[in-house]
Amino acid sequence: SAHATRGRVSLVGAGPGDPELLTLKAQRKLREADVIVHDRLIGPSILEYARRDAVRIAAGKEPGKASIAQADINAILIREARRGKQVVRLKGGDPYIFGRGGEEQLALEAEGITVDVVPGITAALGCAANIGLPLTQRGRNQSFTFLTGASEEGVPEHDWRALSQKGQAFAIYMGVGTSGQIQARLLAAGIDPHTPVTIVENGTLADERIFEAEISDLTAIIKGKSIAGPA
Amino acid sequence: SAHATRGRVSLVGAGPGDPELLTLKAQRKLREADVIVHDRLIGPSILEYARRDAVRIAAGKEPGKASIAQADINAILIREARRGKQVVRLKGGDPYIFGRGGEEQLALEAEGITVDVVPGITAALGCAANIGLPLTQRGRNQSFTFLTGASEEGVPEHDWRALSQKGQAFAIYMGVGTSGQIQARLLAAGIDPHTPVTIVENGTLADERIFEAEISDLTAIIKGKSIAGPA
Repeated sequence: SAHATRGRVSLVGAGPGDPELLTLKAQRKLREADVIVHDRLIGPSILEYARRDAVRIAAGKEPGKASIAQADINAILIREARRGKQVVRLKGGDPYIFGRGGEEQLALEAEGITVDVVPGITAALGCAANIGLPLTQRGRNQSFTFLTGASEEGVPEHDWRALSQKGQAFAIYMGVGTSGQIQARLLAAGIDPHTPVTIVENGTLADERIFEAEISDLTAIIKGKSIAGPA
Repeated sequence: SAHATRGRVSLVGAGPGDPELLTLKAQRKLREADVIVHDRLIGPSILEYARRDAVRIAAGKEPGKASIAQADINAILIREARRGKQVVRLKGGDPYIFGRGGEEQLALEAEGITVDVVPGITAALGCAANIGLPLTQRGRNQSFTFLTGASEEGVPEHDWRALSQKGQAFAIYMGVGTSGQIQARLLAAGIDPHTPVTIVENGTLADERIFEAEISDLTAIIKGKSIAGPA
């Protein structure tokens, strides 16, 4: 045909790990993609939804070199879209919750590339459903917060005092490495040391592990149980 | 067969509205269900994933009689599970985010009925993806909060002061009816009146409407644009 197809990038959430927690729309986007640029953590059973002739590029971040890897990922996405490819940037969880989806979107839009976004089941919701723990409950909590436990400067400056009030409920993402500091800040901010905490490692996957604890023994459990996977 | 099948209830999130935002697992649960008890807001294209011989019961809440309806819903779920049926309780969004899923689960478990939960794309994530607005962004915000705008006593007692700090980002669910009070409490707590707010009505559906505003003209826009659907 005389037309050159316009390339585009879809930022697609792959959900928390269980391939059945992909949305129908994410599944369709994977089937339509010429090129799939995926986080390293995305499992092979999710990538099987792709066409056999699709190019797959593992481009996820590895701890300690996030910013270099991010520039490389952006460059790949821009290059493939300019070649007229239908590109899926497949990200764990939801692209807009601690996924740097917004940064990739800005980089692409700055180059005039069309971007669309497909939401995904974010880890906190996937884990809560799996372990049977409601995130909101009338009479108990009327809000729920997602926090990141890690930033480039170590532990982010959250409002630990507000989080430590009775009736607050929150999920900490990427908090294993900084769990000692998180625990110390919550206790210093006056949280009840018996506040229940559930640690979910490899949530919704076959090797999921769940530990019930209290804030006062959070780090002891993370060390004692050798929690090392995403949690 | 000599066996009586054990009835069970799956609390299933239907996502924010767009039928393509159902998960593969939710789609499978709908196909397997003998009985589907669904919120009134769930659209017909989602219910089409059910088997033709499945019984469908519209049992959603209507404003002003929530508590009576909830007891009725619980009674239907218990009755059908006791009859040995595979029951799906299909709820908008995610069952554990302001969906009373936890209450239904407790009522069922108190009767010895097996319950499992399938997460759904919660409205804030579906809307954000659709309008292209990241919920977290490095250097801007490192947490994100979901709030309910309505409770049995009117506006819930959120920590408005903490929410009004620079760098906070949050989504208010079910806040149209109380938008005047929400706006007043945020302004009284010292929020910058120019803080941007996006109002999404019927998010991810064909009749979605999006309005960009500032906190200071939130109620004027809700009235002026006659926002009346879920937002």
